[in-house]
Formats: sequence, structure tokens, C-alpha cells
Amino acid sequence: MEILRQSFQIKYDYNVYFTASIFDLNNKALSDFFRNSDTGYLRKIMFVIDEGVNNAQPNLIKNIKAYFSKYCCISLVQDFVIVPGGEECKNDNKCLYDIMEAIDANGIDRHSYLAAIGGGAVLDLAGYVSAIAHRGIKHLRFPTTVLSQNDSGIGVKNGINAFGKKNFIGTFCPPDAVFNDINFLQTLSTRIWKSGISEAIKVALIKDATFFEWIEANQVLLSLRDTEATRYLIKRCAELHLMHIGGADPFEKGSSRPLDFGHWSAHKIESLSKYQILHGEAVAMGIALDTAYSVLNNRLDEAKGQRILALLLKFDFHIDHPLALIHSLQSPLIKGLREFREHLGGNLAITFLSDIGVGEEHNQIDLQLLIKSSEMVSQFAKPYMPLLFQ
Amino acid sequence: MEILRQSFQIKYDYNVYFTASIFDLNNKALSDFFRNSDTGYLRKIMFVIDEGVNNAQPNLIKNIKAYFSKYCCISLVQDFVIVPGGEECKNDNKCLYDIMEAIDANGIDRHSYLAAIGGGAVLDLAGYVSAIAHRGIKHLRFPTTVLSQNDSGIGVKNGINAFGKKNFIGTFCPPDAVFNDINFLQTLSTRIWKSGISEAIKVALIKDATFFEWIEANQVLLSLRDTEATRYLIKRCAELHLMHIGGADPFEKGSSRPLDFGHWSAHKIESLSKYQILHGEAVAMGIALDTAYSVLNNRLDEAKGQRILALLLKFDFHIDHPLALIHSLQSPLIKGLREFREHLGGNLAITFLSDIGVGEEHNQIDLQLLIKSSEMVSQFAKPYMPLLFQ
Ligand SMILES: NC(=O)c1ccc[n+]([C@@H]2O[C@H](COP(=O)([O-])OP(=O)(O)OC[C@H]3O[C@@H](n4cnc5c(N)ncnc54)[C@H](O)[C@@H]3O)[C@@H](O)[C@H]2O)c1
Ligand SMILES: NC(=O)c1ccc[n+]([C@@H]2O[C@H](COP(=O)([O-])OP(=O)(O)OC[C@H]3O[C@@H](n4cnc5c(N)ncnc54)[C@H](O)[C@@H]3O)[C@@H](O)[C@H]2O)c1
Ligand SMILES: [Zn+2]
Ligand SMILES: [Zn+2]
Repeated sequence: MEILRQSFQIKYDYNVYFTASIFDLNNKALSDFFRNSDTGYLRKIMFVIDEGVNNAQPNLIKNIKAYFSKYCCISLVQDFVIVPGGEECKNDNKCLYDIMEAIDANGIDRHSYLAAIGGGAVLDLAGYVSAIAHRGIKHLRFPTTVLSQNDSGIGVKNGINAFGKKNFIGTFCPPDAVFNDINFLQTLSTRIWKSGISEAIKVALIKDATFFEWIEANQVLLSLRDTEATRYLIKRCAELHLMHIGGADPFEKGSSRPLDFGHWSAHKIESLSKYQILHGEAVAMGIALDTAYSVLNNRLDEAKGQRILALLLKFDFHIDHPLALIHSLQSPLIKGLREFREHLGGNLAITFLSDIGVGEEHNQIDLQLLIKSSEMVSQFAKPYMPLLFQ
Repeated sequence: MEILRQSFQIKYDYNVYFTASIFDLNNKALSDFFRNSDTGYLRKIMFVIDEGVNNAQPNLIKNIKAYFSKYCCISLVQDFVIVPGGEECKNDNKCLYDIMEAIDANGIDRHSYLAAIGGGAVLDLAGYVSAIAHRGIKHLRFPTTVLSQNDSGIGVKNGINAFGKKNFIGTFCPPDAVFNDINFLQTLSTRIWKSGISEAIKVALIKDATFFEWIEANQVLLSLRDTEATRYLIKRCAELHLMHIGGADPFEKGSSRPLDFGHWSAHKIESLSKYQILHGEAVAMGIALDTAYSVLNNRLDEAKGQRILALLLKFDFHIDHPLALIHSLQSPLIKGLREFREHLGGNLAITFLSDIGVGEEHNQIDLQLLIKSSEMVSQFAKPYMPLLFQ
């Protein structure tokens, strides 16, 4: 039998810029970006905006128009596509269709940009559209939540929901650039703001003990949404995520997902709550459970485990939420674990901790120990209860 | 302003296997493939089949079932998704939905395969679904037309139509393997069979004079659908396409598309004919026009130009089809050229010939010379008319 072999590599690169008031007329970050990426082609840019952001920041579109009329390096499409923020835009096919139609109507081609301003959900949707329209158009992201600036908005994944399943459809497709503008965060509710912190705790726990200690030391400032502390938190968390993604397996061909520490249960908790529990909140619950497991499994020092649980509680994460607890082998989270194993093709790969800053992959999980871990989390959280519900 | 840079490479490789009767119980190509790619995961395979092929080859599904029950290296999903062949499946969202739903219902995950058997249209659709379901599942192609075995089915592009535009949606996403089974071609109509030859002539003209001479020398055998000649034609054409794709720009980030020689007008001719003219037939018309232009522009020797036009006519390509002719600056093809220029972001990049086997890129096109080129094609084809319509 004759065989022809095909083999090639594709190089991807993009920058994540940390800035403030990106559409301020004195901020050259964006105009410099377009000047430096000039290709001689006529280029257009069209914006998709999260409705929540647009309502909270009513001058946004006016500012964008003023910016592009000052710096006329690229042609701004006057048609702005506003989509509902949050999971709704990933569930509703009409949002996908509206963006596609605007791309067609405004002649956005492979030399032009689809820019998205919003939380992780809107970025996931717009990133997906950018990946499939004309087999891929250029894409810029302006994340507006802590979670999307430190994690979801800077990576390579996009997606929408279908058949009742989160991210059933999507691609791996890096953006052309990400602009993390700290001032976008000002109008966030404290609940959504804080939910982004758990991803920073997560990545610190598996990769960087010093960062974990920094978060511990700055817990009060962070809870007060202090700008400098927030800026550092986001920057370091983004950096650790980017380093990991740029490492061995950017498009997740294998099964190993250390960045998904705490996530096997988080995904199930989110769906059990019908997405009333936010992703970051569920991740905090998942971190607590897997930290307790690491202790009971004699991998992690007990005192260190307690520091982790205490930190999560100080950020008001409800780690003993009823949906996050495992009372018996019939608990829904155990069912979730089975689905997760199936999803991985039969072989489990779950990250636990052997130290603060050190994740390690396990290929099996002791269900009885998991039930005890859940109990340990409840016991530990009990004294904090009054604080949470005061 | 602080900047984090992300940079990584992704390696892609896949094989194109040339075989016959792939589901014959004695053919080990497929079972070897699964044995060699074993990862220890539970893997499934689900088939999408072109209705035209399934009708023409009524034992196909029975043979597939028998094959996988003999070689039980992977679990065969008993649900076969049959989709209409040809452009219809790329236009009709229901086909996309049916495949997606079957993926969900049968638990096809990132370790499992979606296999597609069919012409270029069904492969384009199934390739697209494979690229987006679960952010990419594994994908095998079994092309069943000359065109898809030598060109469309072995490459990295997929797509569906939307907003009345061909391939408005799609991705660049290499398959995991391609199995070119010569026996699939037996049930093709002669018209569809022959339409695939023009892509071989095209790639020979821009890359390989020896291959062009081989096609000239074997024109009669090829027209008679001789197996050995066909096998060589497909193999060499596939090889030239693969070499080009694996070269400078696999995912077409730039504007240069030498493989699209003859295609700027072909795409417009197909759409003007409401897709009654097949892709390969339109490409033959496009090759004729751009060959004539290369001669009149003093880049290509006239005698060589005539050899090319003569070869196209010997394969019965209707190179002076009314929709392919340009009588004035108001002709629809001139409008198509303008759209094409726009599509390229304002800068034209069209391949013409400076010799047989040598393409060269031009950034402008002389419209008056194009009208004369069309006239040259008509004049040349006139004596062949009776042959075409006898
Ligand atoms: N692609 C990835 O790698 C990845 C990783 C993790 C999470 N995600 C996805 O991210 C999504 C969650 O994103 P999120 O936590 O950023 O929240 P979100 O996108 O769900 O937004 C939450 C709410 O905040 C509003 N909002 C956003 N920014 C605002 C601002 N600056 N001011 C006022 N309101 C604002 C939105 O309108 C929305 O109502 C989920 O869909 C999740 O699946 C993706
Ligand atoms: N992805 C790419 O790089 C690329 C390149 C070129 C063309 N294409 C696409 O390929 C499509 C054209 O593909 P095509 O020329 O292979 O034809 P096709 O897929 O349009 O099929 C033509 C007809 O032949 C039937 N058929 C296919 N195989 C058969 C067989 N063995 N026996 C009997 N009937 C059979 C089909 O049912 C259909 O009715 C177009 O949609 C075009 O856009 C894609
Ligand atoms: Zn997460
Ligand atoms: Zn073609």
C-alpha cells in the first residue's frame, strides 16, 4: 500500500496588553497595535459588546467612535452588535446568528477584525464566531471581568453550548491580541468580581507557592477591590496560565489538564445549580474538596490544607454549599465523576496537591476518601457559617 | 504598559493511504491504522455516509459492520448518518444538526472518530463538524470522487455554505488520516468522474511539466477511466497538493494562493450557473481563460497555450461555455473579479503561467486583455464544438 505523509507546524503568537482606559484618546495602545500590524490591506474592525457592560458603561460606544475617528488606522464598522451577557449568549443561537449576519452585511473578511468586549461568556461566543467565519477572521479580546482577564479571555479556547451541554461546540483558536483594561472592572458587582479570584488561587496552588503566599498576605486589599492588588493578581495569574498553555499541549490533545485542578466537581456543581453558582464560585468549592482529599490521602500537609480552606473562606466562598457536598456513593458529584471518567475515554486524570505550589496527577480516586474529604470541608467551614450568612 | 507574549507551535501530521476495497475483510489498512494509533482509551467510530454513495453501493454498511466485527480494535457505532450528497448537504442546516445530534447521542468524544465517506461536499461538512464538536474530535476521510481523492479530501480545509455564500463558515483542520480507495470511484457518473481531472491539470500546470506531459500522453486511457492511469493521476495530483499545503502557508494566513490557479473565475462561474456547472468543470473553464491571458500577456509561449486548451477540450471540458465568456467590462465575471479583489482586502493576487509547470503571481490584471483572452478561448474551441454536442 502506498502512503503519502503530510506534516507541518503552525506558529501562533499574540500579546496580552495590560492597560487602563483603552479608548481614552491619549491611550495609544490600540492605535500602536494597528500601526505595527499594518499589512497594506484595507482592514475593518467590528465590535461585539456584552449588554451588561454596555448598560453599565453608557459612554463606551461613544468613546470607541471618538477613538477610531482620531486614530483612523483602520476602518470602524458603525454597526455594533450588542449581545446579552453571561451564559445566555452561549445558549441562544440567535446571538451567534446576529454576529454572523453582521459579519456578512459589513463585509468583514480574513483581513478584518472581530473585537469583543465583555465577560468570559461573550468572549467565548465571539471567539467561536471569529474562528469559523470565512475559516477564521482576526480577533481581538477586551475582557471585562476578573475571571476573563486572568484566565478565560487570555487563552486559546472558545465555545458555545448545545444539547444542554456546556461548550459542546467550539474550537482551539488563539486571538490576535488581548487588551486587559483594569478600568472595565469598576462596574462589576462584587459577587462577579470576587468569583474570578478562585482561578488565581487555583493556579497558585498548582504552580507557584510564592504567589499563593502573596494572595494570603493581600487578602484584605483584594477583598476591598484595591486597584494595585487586583492588577498584580490578574497579571501573575494570566502569566501562569499563559506559560502553561504555551507549554506541552496548547490544544489539549492529551488528557492531562493540570489547570483543571478543582474543576472536575466544579463543572458538575455549576450544572446542578442550573448555573446559579458562578464558575469561579464552583471552582472554589472544587478546590476545597480536592485540597481536603490531598490531605486525607497523605499527600498534602494538614496545616497547609487548612491554610487553603481558610483563605477560600476569607474570600467568602461558600465551600460547604449543599450542592458541593458528597454524603454517599449515590451523591450527584459521584455521578459527575463517572461522566468525567467517560469523557476522558475511561482513564481518569485528576490533579491533586502534594504541596502548596505543586500539583500532581492521579489516575484513580478513592470514593470513600472523597466522602470523608467532603466531611472535612464541612467541619472546617462550620465556624465560618455565621460570617457567611450575616 | 506591560505586555505578556504568548508563542507556541502546533505540529500536525497525517497520512493519506492509497488502497482498494478498504472494507474487504482481507484489507488490513484500517485495522492496522487503529492498532498503531492505540492510546489505551476506549475509542468509538461513527460513520457519516454520502447518500449518493450509499445508494450506488448498497452493500457498503453491511461491509463496514462485518469489517469492524472482525477487527474489533475500536467500537463501531451502529447508527450511520446518511446525508444527501453534493452541495445540498452544505446548504441545509439540518444535515449539520443531524450529525451533531448523533455525536451527542452516541457519546462521541475527543478520543473517538467521526469518519466520512463521500464526495467533497459531504467531506467538507463532516470535516467541519469534526472540527467544532467538543472543540475537535478525531476525523477520518474516505473520499469517493476523483476530485476529493486528488484535492479537496486530502487537504486541511472544511466548510459549509451560509448567507448564500459558498464556504462562508468553516475552519482549517487537518484530518487524522485519509483513505483513498480507488474502488469507490467505480459507481461515479462519467461527468462527475471527469470533472476531477481539471484539478490535476491545474496543479501540473503550475508545478510539474512532466506530470502535464504524462496527462497529455494518457488522455485516452484517462477518458476511458482506466484504473492504473487513474491511480497514478490521483496519486501524483494528491502529492503535489500535499507538498504545497505542507509548505509555506498551510492555513492561508497570507493572500497568495497558487493552488487557486484558474479559480478566481471558476468560483463565479459555479455560482452564476447556480451550481449546475460542477467545481471541476468550472475550474477547466478558468484554466482556459487564464492560460489565454498568460499567452496574450506575453508570459506564456503561444504553442504551449494551445496545447493546454487542446487538452482541456479532449477531456470534453466546455471551455467556451456562455457563462465563462467575457464580452465587455459589464460582464458578470468582471464583477466577480472586483468581488475577489475586495475579498483579498484590496490587493489582487492571481496566478498565471510563464511556462507549463511554472505559475507566477500577478498583482494586477488588464481587463481589456481579459476580454481578448476570452475571445481567444472561443476561437480556439469553435472547431471542437461539433464534438462536444454530438
Ligand atoms: N474559554 C475559556 O478558556 C474559559 C475558561 C473559563 C471560563 N470560561 C467561560 O467564561 C464564562 C464566565 O465568564 P465570566 O465569569 O467572565 O462571566 P460572564 O461572562 O458570565 O458575565 C457575568 C455577568 O457580568 C456582566 N458583566 C461583565 N463584565 C461587566 C462589567 N465590566 N461591568 C458590569 N457587568 C459586567 C455580564 O453582562 C454578565 O451578566 C463561562 O461561560 C465559562 O464557560 C471560558
Ligand atoms: N475543502 C476543500 O479544500 C475543497 C476543495 C475543492 C472543492 N471542495 C468542495 O468539494 C465539493 C465538490 O466535491 P465533489 O466534486 O467531490 O462532488 P460532490 O461532493 O458535490 O458530489 C457530487 C455527487 O456525486 C455523488 N457521489 C459521490 N461519490 C460517489 C460515488 N462513488 N458513486 C456515486 N455517486 C457518488 C454525490 O452523492 C453527489 O450527488 C464542493 O462543495 C467544493 O466546494 C472543497
Ligand atoms: Zn476555570
Ligand atoms: Zn478547486
